[in-house]
Amino acid sequence: MFELHPRLAADTLAVGRLPLCRLQLMNDARYPWLILVPERAGLREIHQLPPAERAQLIEEISACSQALEAVSRADKINVGALGNLVPQLHVHVIARRAGDAAWPGPVWGQGVAEPWDEAARSALLAALRERLGGLLR
Amino acid sequence: MFELHPRLAADTLAVGRLPLCRLQLMNDARYPWLILVPERAGLREIHQLPPAERAQLIEEISACSQALEAVSRADKINVGALGNLVPQLHVHVIARRAGDAAWPGPVWGQGVAEPWDEAARSALLAALRERLGGLLR
Repeated sequence: MFELHPRLAADTLAVGRLPLCRLQLMNDARYPWLILVPERAGLREIHQLPPAERAQLIEEISACSQALEAVSRADKINVGALGNLVPQLHVHVIARRAGDAAWPGPVWGQGVAEPWDEAARSALLAALRERLGGLLR
Repeated sequence: MFELHPRLAADTLAVGRLPLCRLQLMNDARYPWLILVPERAGLREIHQLPPAERAQLIEEISACSQALEAVSRADKINVGALGNLVPQLHVHVIARRAGDAAWPGPVWGQGVAEPWDEAARSALLAALRERLGGLLR
């Protein structure tokens, strides 16, 4: 049975469910940063998904990228599936801005997360939910 | 017209062509590291590809991941589309081993590339080409 990895559960806030993935927001106000976790038990690598679910995964990545880009005025979207520390397959979709805390390097392992305050988080989640529309349960 | 970005051309070696992507090997023997570049001019983000080409992209990512995993005995495959420095859309597929030069961090921006020597590079490319089979032109 699928369960969100405890490390991901500790670092993120629930956004909702997409057809394939659990959608979480990283609790780090330095970057608007989504995490997509396919709700399949025991997955570690993208290529372990069957082809139809891989196609669904990249559609969900694209929808989240477009939503983040629209609501955050990002200069670049970063997409990554690393999993060197947390083995459960999860995909990062991160809105990057020129001059942000890690720019132009990758965000992973840089500095310390700054938790969202409630008002900014609520506003971001409402804007994302509106953009994602019917895709999000 | 599509042309490989000069920075990618300088840092990588040609492997061949997949149905959608130009396939290159990063010239860095610290990690078996492939770069997939969709042969479409002016692309920056995955979500700018039409859905059928996004599906093809994730199939090519999966095939390259499986090939790298098989030939390199990787502990983990890292997949990333960042593009903060090189704006042309390109996807990294990297074979990671516990204890490699950047483990467990991401590889980008860590240390200095160590060019492949010709024998090791030829052996890796031959093994990859065999695994990728008919997908590679």
